[in-house]
Amino acid sequence: MNILITNDDGIYSEGLTALVQEMSEVANITVVAPDRERSATAHAITMHKPLRTEKIHIPNSKASGWKVNGTPSDCVKLALEALLDFTPDLVLSGINRGPNLGTDVIYSGTVSAAIEAALSGIPAIALSIISHNHNYENVSFNSAAQIVKKLCMQILERVFPEDSLLNINIPSVEQDEIVGVAITHLGTIKYKNSFDRRMDPRGKIYYWLAGEAIDNDEIGSDVWAVKNKYISITPLLFDLTKYEVIETLKKWDLQI
Amino acid sequence: MNILITNDDGIYSEGLTALVQEMSEVANITVVAPDRERSATAHAITMHKPLRTEKIHIPNSKASGWKVNGTPSDCVKLALEALLDFTPDLVLSGINRGPNLGTDVIYSGTVSAAIEAALSGIPAIALSIISHNHNYENVSFNSAAQIVKKLCMQILERVFPEDSLLNINIPSVEQDEIVGVAITHLGTIKYKNSFDRRMDPRGKIYYWLAGEAIDNDEIGSDVWAVKNKYISITPLLFDLTKYEVIETLKKWDLQI
Repeated sequence: MNILITNDDGIYSEGLTALVQEMSEVANITVVAPDRERSATAHAITMHKPLRTEKIHIPNSKASGWKVNGTPSDCVKLALEALLDFTPDLVLSGINRGPNLGTDVIYSGTVSAAIEAALSGIPAIALSIISHNHNYENVSFNSAAQIVKKLCMQILERVFPEDSLLNINIPSVEQDEIVGVAITHLGTIKYKNSFDRRMDPRGKIYYWLAGEAIDNDEIGSDVWAVKNKYISITPLLFDLTKYEVIETLKKWDLQI
Repeated sequence: MNILITNDDGIYSEGLTALVQEMSEVANITVVAPDRERSATAHAITMHKPLRTEKIHIPNSKASGWKVNGTPSDCVKLALEALLDFTPDLVLSGINRGPNLGTDVIYSGTVSAAIEAALSGIPAIALSIISHNHNYENVSFNSAAQIVKKLCMQILERVFPEDSLLNINIPSVEQDEIVGVAITHLGTIKYKNSFDRRMDPRGKIYYWLAGEAIDNDEIGSDVWAVKNKYISITPLLFDLTKYEVIETLKKWDLQI
């Protein structure tokens, strides 16, 4: 089995290393990932400068791969269309340091890398770990990677749903505290006081994106699941058409 | 009526100027847009550096606004949450120089700006013009802006669909050649030979994103509509949950 691993925290991140080491036990792993952190890049792609790659080896594993001066989407595109001489059986993106839940998935580089693979018809899973501890000091990426391995082995035995990808968020608690697996829908996360307005030493105004998340932990949502110590698995789509509105718009009878 | 206008080609682009001038005739226009081209940034947001704004005036119009050193999504977020002291009745993103069709919308900064507004519950429309002429030399943004004005006046009289936004693509042909308005779904666009592999003068390999689009112009899709000289209007969603797969995944009965 051939697995391509990428992420948006950069190729040297703890989450990617742990994932590669664990998954190496059950599959041939190739890594193609950004050379540095590219969080919140969403599905950005690099059109106006060339991409460079450098061969690398992931410590304490048999895995090798490439680091790329691009976004997570660039990495997957480049892997599938230029670097690899095989089609992977699975693409994993992560394990991301921090949640990718609810409305926020739209900003996620981690999820976008998985979408890019899904667009090419390859089963793809975005993986994130959630700690209540903001600096992620005592988070066990190794423990999360073990869980991911168990889940992947089961998922690969099923028929992967067409035109879909999976978004998995793992609460950072002891393994025996995890309640189970919840299949969820995306919740909503809104922010209040989103921007900090400040003045620089030269009297000019600038803004920092900040803000306090107000999440709606409605039962059955991913936000609810991880709060209640479930592993959340959400099926995602990449066809953004809102089909149920097409007939309504036709009735509008717009004229030019 | 208050309309917020943004784009991803940058605040000085011809498409934005034409749109502002035309829409100024029927509404109060405020512009908050990137200070330079930010195409293919998708839904990227700026978290690791501060955003700066500068007040500007759009030539030959009563409209004023701000240019921002950020992405289209940053612009809409900042407008709604820090710069404007009112909630706009409509957000328009464009008019983009080039199509935003099919699977490609996922990379689009133009569409993402509209999604950002829709996330805040504001009616939002992404606008793009398509020329077969690659350098967009003889494209009439003014003519497209007139069409947009006509469409917006009609759309605002209808009940805007909830949790949706509209993606409008206008073929660049004479107005009397346009066949009509087609309500469409997103088509698929695949690329072959996506990357050009080259060697730099120092013998190092680099890659340019390139590739030839192979679009599937299935009847009813946006790709089909613009090829056949229709204006394409596609309703889009921003909740990426693939609801119809939830029950299937529940039956997988995954264990940890």
